[in-house]
Amino acid sequence: MAKIETGGVTSPMGFTAGAVAAGIRDSDAADLAILYSDRPAQVAGAFTANTFAAAPVQYDREICRRGKTVRAILANSGNANACTGPRGMADTRQAAAWTATALQLAQPADVLVCSTGIIGKPLPMDCVQRGIDQAAARLSDSGGSAAAQAIMTTDTCPKEAAIRLKIGERTITLGGMAKGAGMIAPHLVPEVPHATMLAFITTDATLSPAFLQTCLKNSLDESFNRITIDGDTSTNDTFLVLANGAAGNDPIQPDTPEAQAFEQALDQLAAHLAKSMVKDGEGATRFVEVQVTGAVHNDEARRCAAAIANSLLCKTAWFGADPNWGRILDAAGYAGVHINVEQTALDYAGIPLVRQGMPVAVDTEKLQQAAAAKDLQLTLDLGAGTGQFVMWTCDLSYDYVRINAEYHT
Amino acid sequence: MAKIETGGVTSPMGFTAGAVAAGIRDSDAADLAILYSDRPAQVAGAFTANTFAAAPVQYDREICRRGKTVRAILANSGNANACTGPRGMADTRQAAAWTATALQLAQPADVLVCSTGIIGKPLPMDCVQRGIDQAAARLSDSGGSAAAQAIMTTDTCPKEAAIRLKIGERTITLGGMAKGAGMIAPHLVPEVPHATMLAFITTDATLSPAFLQTCLKNSLDESFNRITIDGDTSTNDTFLVLANGAAGNDPIQPDTPEAQAFEQALDQLAAHLAKSMVKDGEGATRFVEVQVTGAVHNDEARRCAAAIANSLLCKTAWFGADPNWGRILDAAGYAGVHINVEQTALDYAGIPLVRQGMPVAVDTEKLQQAAAAKDLQLTLDLGAGTGQFVMWTCDLSYDYVRINAEYHT
Repeated sequence: MAKIETGGVTSPMGFTAGAVAAGIRDSDAADLAILYSDRPAQVAGAFTANTFAAAPVQYDREICRRGKTVRAILANSGNANACTGPRGMADTRQAAAWTATALQLAQPADVLVCSTGIIGKPLPMDCVQRGIDQAAARLSDSGGSAAAQAIMTTDTCPKEAAIRLKIGERTITLGGMAKGAGMIAPHLVPEVPHATMLAFITTDATLSPAFLQTCLKNSLDESFNRITIDGDTSTNDTFLVLANGAAGNDPIQPDTPEAQAFEQALDQLAAHLAKSMVKDGEGATRFVEVQVTGAVHNDEARRCAAAIANSLLCKTAWFGADPNWGRILDAAGYAGVHINVEQTALDYAGIPLVRQGMPVAVDTEKLQQAAAAKDLQLTLDLGAGTGQFVMWTCDLSYDYVRINAEYHT
Repeated sequence: MAKIETGGVTSPMGFTAGAVAAGIRDSDAADLAILYSDRPAQVAGAFTANTFAAAPVQYDREICRRGKTVRAILANSGNANACTGPRGMADTRQAAAWTATALQLAQPADVLVCSTGIIGKPLPMDCVQRGIDQAAARLSDSGGSAAAQAIMTTDTCPKEAAIRLKIGERTITLGGMAKGAGMIAPHLVPEVPHATMLAFITTDATLSPAFLQTCLKNSLDESFNRITIDGDTSTNDTFLVLANGAAGNDPIQPDTPEAQAFEQALDQLAAHLAKSMVKDGEGATRFVEVQVTGAVHNDEARRCAAAIANSLLCKTAWFGADPNWGRILDAAGYAGVHINVEQTALDYAGIPLVRQGMPVAVDTEKLQQAAAAKDLQLTLDLGAGTGQFVMWTCDLSYDYVRINAEYHT
């Protein structure tokens, strides 16, 4: 397995980025970024399944469906451009056109657009126009971090990383950035997927569009579709992968060791970004991995893990460092999945708590200590089959309530 | 329509109740109650759909399925007797047997048993035995309030009420009591429905068992199945209706004006108790009615209303008195229901906020004032059909987190 390294979206060759404070947010924080490829890049995208998908999501879906290459992503925080009707779509197209002009690209459709922030307010287009020109003038191969900063909303830190692998004689680099940190329970659908999650991965690998699509599709269940912070699926969730071929490798062919290595690296990087989001979830003090095994099939395991990961009673117990297994079984019990009650088993931070559906004797002191760890792993076996799924989530703290009760529209 | 009055489960003729502090809870608060009918009572029950249904729930289901009369309900707080295996069921049967003996009843099956409290700990049977004897000795026709007190867990106040109606020359009385206040998102299934909800309604009406079943079944969607506090469906949720015929009316026949009047009174009382639970929800500062109209059918309206009512972002916005309609539309958008986006309309406390899927101009000051009311009504029209459903819920406050993070197993 390759190793997650320091880096970001400008780590792969041929990618530059620039960011500015365009005045879209109420603060003077950076809120607009351009990510640019110096040559045409294959693109694969996954977008929110929310019915109220924002204008930029609808626009990007179209671009991705065409199956052609792109050259840039324009991203802004501070305004989601969601529930903005025909004007929202016109604004998105206008922003893409301005970006294409600023970057001297052939057409607006060379530019993807992503927005995150408040719902239902039109984009302040004067700020957007000025910001595009300024960001385009600042493109730099060290601009990845500034871009990662610019897409933050309630995030407390930028999220970026890179990973490298050898394909033949060539070194391939993948770089990524992402933002959370609330309204996070992505349900990303390939070519169709607030605070929203946005995640971008760039790579200089050469590969076919079809293979890139497959990689993106397969990576979702290993990464963004297994996280939940608050159970709220946003109108703007977007995951984009751009591959510009700058590494000059022989095109990666499906079903080869090289393909496998690339897929693994993409999955690793996507998983790393997804975990980073959860660890920086709004108000989060604890990262919790919920593994469900023994389901009749993987989809029931997923539904059961999601019920536990989204349960307010489980989340508040985790915040209180209380190994409350009753709430975990209760949540599993209303998930609507097959459970062999008499065969149910639960391990809490590696400590057996339930066997045959009943509590077992436990060293209370050791358990309390384990429950207070920053990273918690729970494994629930439903005793009904071989299906399994892992969810990543966090606890529910006073700060989550503060952040979301004090954020005013 | 009849009027909700002061009263409780001992308001109807022939019912008495007694309660004691049996030492099941850690405090010296009352925690065990017996509700007794001086003659055989028809019974209808609805129980949690949770797979980990507690021993007393499994026991009561059996009793209700037999279709025979009963004479008493034994209820305790402090211990849910859930996830307790064969021992839990043996303890429930033993408690019923002791109660039957104390009340000089023919058989244990004359006694229903309900428990609420901690999951996974065996009942302290010495306390239960002593409590049963003491409570049986205290039965009184003014004992309803004491019983309503004894079933409380995190409730801040007892919940009881009565309602009266005329059937021919006779006055029929219905009395009810209930408890919340967390782990409340009942999914009650007739003959099959933590803190748990428990609700008992007594009546001295004479009616057929089949009609009582129908009344109970029809009342669920008008009451307990439309409430959610935290989205967690308990292992112990139970709703029981007992009718002992002490009023001496001619048996109520289905499809008559009398039947309609009785049904309406039962619905009213059940709805009143359900609302009381939500108003006393853990940490609740605001009662919110979420009405969804214009769905393709009632079930989609229900799913959409539930998504909004359970959304952490909506609930925290309500706590913050923030009329954040974006979060409401977002939740509707991930509910997985048909929405005609361009026809969506939202009224917030009677003020139009969204028309044709987009925000409309609004008097901000008036809106802020409306959003700060203790009782909030939201109406979302999906523009897709004629289906509708109403949910009752509450906000999510710091106190909810405190109560559930500090409650330790």
